[in-house]
Amino acid sequence: MKSGIGKFPRLAVVLVGDRRDSHTFIHIKLKACDQVGIETVASQLPENCDESELLDVVSGFNEDPDVHGILVQLPLPQHLDEEKIINVVSLEKDVDGFHPLNIGNLAIRGRKPFFVPCAPKGCIELLPRHGVEIKGKRAVIIGRSKIVGLPTSLLLQRHHATVSVLHAYMKNPEHITSEADIVVVDVGVPNIVCGNWIKKGAVVIDMGTNQVKDPSGHGFCVSGDVCFEEAVKVASAITPVPGGVGPVTISMLLSNTLDSVKRAFGMV
Amino acid sequence: MKSGIGKFPRLAVVLVGDRRDSHTFIHIKLKACDQVGIETVASQLPENCDESELLDVVSGFNEDPDVHGILVQLPLPQHLDEEKIINVVSLEKDVDGFHPLNIGNLAIRGRKPFFVPCAPKGCIELLPRHGVEIKGKRAVIIGRSKIVGLPTSLLLQRHHATVSVLHAYMKNPEHITSEADIVVVDVGVPNIVCGNWIKKGAVVIDMGTNQVKDPSGHGFCVSGDVCFEEAVKVASAITPVPGGVGPVTISMLLSNTLDSVKRAFGMV
Repeated sequence: MKSGIGKFPRLAVVLVGDRRDSHTFIHIKLKACDQVGIETVASQLPENCDESELLDVVSGFNEDPDVHGILVQLPLPQHLDEEKIINVVSLEKDVDGFHPLNIGNLAIRGRKPFFVPCAPKGCIELLPRHGVEIKGKRAVIIGRSKIVGLPTSLLLQRHHATVSVLHAYMKNPEHITSEADIVVVDVGVPNIVCGNWIKKGAVVIDMGTNQVKDPSGHGFCVSGDVCFEEAVKVASAITPVPGGVGPVTISMLLSNTLDSVKRAFGMV
Repeated sequence: MKSGIGKFPRLAVVLVGDRRDSHTFIHIKLKACDQVGIETVASQLPENCDESELLDVVSGFNEDPDVHGILVQLPLPQHLDEEKIINVVSLEKDVDGFHPLNIGNLAIRGRKPFFVPCAPKGCIELLPRHGVEIKGKRAVIIGRSKIVGLPTSLLLQRHHATVSVLHAYMKNPEHITSEADIVVVDVGVPNIVCGNWIKKGAVVIDMGTNQVKDPSGHGFCVSGDVCFEEAVKVASAITPVPGGVGPVTISMLLSNTLDSVKRAFGMV
């Protein structure tokens, strides 16, 4: 790409505050970019920064023709209006796909969003690659976050699954889950989905990343939302945590950034 | 309102072509506006009009401060790019709620679209008025049109139902339907949903409007998507067709237009 258009793809990442998990995620993303030749520019703001400072940073990246993707690491500190910030990210650089116009165009069949959020896109990348057909299948999404649950439900519907979205107000979530061919979980509660929730032969995608005490008693480790040891006995395929959906999600960020620069230079 | 702000609410309706059903719908909408004191301005374009002509009409209404709501009657003739037309309607006047930014903001929890599409809004109006709780209930939406199925699924999720969206690729739709507390149907096939699809005591909302031969053998009548005679025996409540959701949908158009003028004059 550098030799073709004289430019490297460039991703701008914006990080506010000191959340350890956010720092870890940003570190992983920057490293992945570096490995594939995507340049990065990072802007780090203090926990107590003004909203106007953050808006200025995002606007600056919007206007910079050498920046092809902008990622604002979520969640933001409480005093900042996340909606306002996300709305400001240029649609054409919204590589996270969280802008409501991108979400709206993802929801409406026949429309094409500029970007599909990375975790759901990773889901859809994984399934056919492992021979899992989506069309006509019953899918259950447990959790309805705007980052994972919502866009995954919209994307699976686009691929003609029959999608049911479960949440905390649902009684007996195990019943409907046990009828699903594809189960996607993202609730942030370790091991909430047990083996007896899963239909024999179902495919399980665990999007959870929970920090839990290490079984050895020393320090912490990362656990998913699904009780892997139980579910692996009934599922035909299951993503582990860590090492399952996470790396695919990062790959989709790289893919979205590449798509963005290609679009900017009329290469798609 | 006339005495308060010196203006009547005004709705602009745009009709292209000669579809009989579209003419009927527009007639009903204009009459309803007249009955409640909403002024209307109608623009009718020929079936073979240019896209630019239609865009000019919509843009004119966008810029007219005396127009508070714009409704482009769908479907448009095939040669017109419906997406492009809907995208041009001013967000603040999009009383049909079909603009992708309004749909995106409807999908994302915690966000507030300017307008919610009229038929789904009517659904949510009907349910609590008849003592039907939505929160925690299982809802099945049969059909996933962008006008009814999609926004109804998003709106019911906002009200904390567990929503499953069914479509033509689903095998055995009667099974999952028979587990639902609330069944919303909009597929455009007369009597496709039989009584044995419905759980005893479920609530059935029939959004279908199909022209079918009159049983008397003379002329045509309007039928829903649900076999009313069968479903009424098992449902705890069911909307008839005609006379069920239709009038409520029209009321929601009036309500959206009123909301629009109130917002324009800072009255909300």
